[in-house]
Amino acid sequence: MSRISKKPLFVHRSSSLLVCGFLLAVSCCANPVRGEDPLPSWNDGAAKQSIISFVARVTAEGAPGFVPVAERIATFDNDGTLWGEQPMYFQAFFIFDRIKTLAPQHPEWKDKEPFASVLRGDVKSALAGGEHALLEMVMATHAGMTTEEFDQIVKDWITTAKHPVSGRLFTQMVYQPMLELLTYLRANGFKIYIVSGGGIEFMRPWTERVYGIPPEQVIGSSIRTKFELRDGRPVLVRLPEINFIDDKAGKPVGIQQHIGRRPIAAFGNSDGDFEMLDWTTSGSGLRFGLIVHHTDADREWAYDRSSHVGKLDKGLNAAAAKGWTVVSMQDDWKTIYCVAP
Amino acid sequence: MSRISKKPLFVHRSSSLLVCGFLLAVSCCANPVRGEDPLPSWNDGAAKQSIISFVARVTAEGAPGFVPVAERIATFDNDGTLWGEQPMYFQAFFIFDRIKTLAPQHPEWKDKEPFASVLRGDVKSALAGGEHALLEMVMATHAGMTTEEFDQIVKDWITTAKHPVSGRLFTQMVYQPMLELLTYLRANGFKIYIVSGGGIEFMRPWTERVYGIPPEQVIGSSIRTKFELRDGRPVLVRLPEINFIDDKAGKPVGIQQHIGRRPIAAFGNSDGDFEMLDWTTSGSGLRFGLIVHHTDADREWAYDRSSHVGKLDKGLNAAAAKGWTVVSMQDDWKTIYCVAP
Repeated sequence: MSRISKKPLFVHRSSSLLVCGFLLAVSCCANPVRGEDPLPSWNDGAAKQSIISFVARVTAEGAPGFVPVAERIATFDNDGTLWGEQPMYFQAFFIFDRIKTLAPQHPEWKDKEPFASVLRGDVKSALAGGEHALLEMVMATHAGMTTEEFDQIVKDWITTAKHPVSGRLFTQMVYQPMLELLTYLRANGFKIYIVSGGGIEFMRPWTERVYGIPPEQVIGSSIRTKFELRDGRPVLVRLPEINFIDDKAGKPVGIQQHIGRRPIAAFGNSDGDFEMLDWTTSGSGLRFGLIVHHTDADREWAYDRSSHVGKLDKGLNAAAAKGWTVVSMQDDWKTIYCVAP
Repeated sequence: MSRISKKPLFVHRSSSLLVCGFLLAVSCCANPVRGEDPLPSWNDGAAKQSIISFVARVTAEGAPGFVPVAERIATFDNDGTLWGEQPMYFQAFFIFDRIKTLAPQHPEWKDKEPFASVLRGDVKSALAGGEHALLEMVMATHAGMTTEEFDQIVKDWITTAKHPVSGRLFTQMVYQPMLELLTYLRANGFKIYIVSGGGIEFMRPWTERVYGIPPEQVIGSSIRTKFELRDGRPVLVRLPEINFIDDKAGKPVGIQQHIGRRPIAAFGNSDGDFEMLDWTTSGSGLRFGLIVHHTDADREWAYDRSSHVGKLDKGLNAAAAKGWTVVSMQDDWKTIYCVAP
């Protein structure tokens, strides 16, 4: 329990505006004007209403559902929830690009799977080796350097790499309605965490710029690191060993490790988020769970129960009984992707 | 790099006052009045001056040492830095008290070391078994319950247990000068983390009340947890397996895992903090490292190079060359413990 002022802080906070890939600070104390729509890219309907109603209830001081600011923790999955994940996780494009970049230093890759397939541009064959092949590619591209070197590698990639289908920068494939939701929750005193199966150090270099979420509020899968002195200077070296997998039943574990308290709201899109949603919404007091359902084959992708990426089956079955909001991208969202300035 | 407003936020923040065991919110926007001493329990001298000078330089907008608010991360060791650690770590008292409480459910402990020694009140013999015996006692008292059950166990203990020498509550053995330092740093836009070798879930139940540091800003050693359904309700069960040791070279690793960026200031008291101080102060730009040296046998304890708890040897040798401030508790502090209201 917090003894920090029970008064909602939002009137004292600097506000900010998320614009496709850029977090812009706006004048201090600028709040959404009362009566103005905080979620303009959301169609009016049950999903939008459930969000607004939840936020109104937990922020109404003196009302039974009131939650102090310190406890207003919201967790968001990343892939498929905040940005796209088709035709494969965007981190996989990073892996393949890195293999191509590193190939000159690894002449042996020409004859060694799964690297040989990647270098031939045959992603399907590269992934045919299953988890073992994937792990080998992850370690070859994510380990062996310092944390600061890896940070720079990701920063360089994310500012230039483009999605093969949309031709957009990956950071321009974040969902405009979700950016509005992040801004809306923040304006109401929420602290927002990403809780993703993706690599924690793959996300941290850009989540602050793109989502307004600082590195310390990113939770993800990780490899081990080791403290070393290099030329007398301390560094952390990334080792080719799994440290933590932040997916499925790992998500509540990761949340407890990093946050140390149960969120009051959780947002996901696949069965990898099921345990996080269940953990969050089974706490006492008002809770909120939301699933983004990919239903828009024209503007994005349509997939659920049998998808190889972002499979959503158990969650769809359980949502009604658990009281989770299911968002249909086709019906509930006016716009899909953020609009570049 | 943050794109959040570069303007120091402290004029917009709620301030708070730490009073022995209680974090009190004071009126919004109340800042330390300019000219008023922000560290009244510190004697004027080089140590106090080094703190004030560092804070002034990193908060002076437009000056070469300026650091944006988002990057003002400070890490504090707990045992021996924020509260006492003699004649043994306070968490050890918790372990022994728990063994006594749990003894009726474990009749076998009467004849089994190290438990038998604890039950006879012979702490020295209990600890004679070294690391193996200690680990056995940790697991017997810290594992097997849910995270929420453990939280309540710690809360109950910390509000009643008293230190055998001082007769004070353990939370009244926090250092008044350090409470002032936490308040001073917060008022200047710093985000403060505890980075302790102690148990992360042993600290979280009370650090917000005592230090104003919320659970998500506590980093410590941990055991593994497992997500389970109990009667259909999700819980996290604490397992008798070490997950992470947040000491020595583990501290920078823990900092990177949780925060994802290098602090600009670090505060410790023993060689267990050496790597954290080194990691912090070897970053670019202005950095600050401080060691609390226990030199006051009358008002607290005096120990360093050969102590079995809080050994400080390497740090004393290196401090001058590394530019770290060494605080002498006897000379630099007017008061040691916080003053109960």
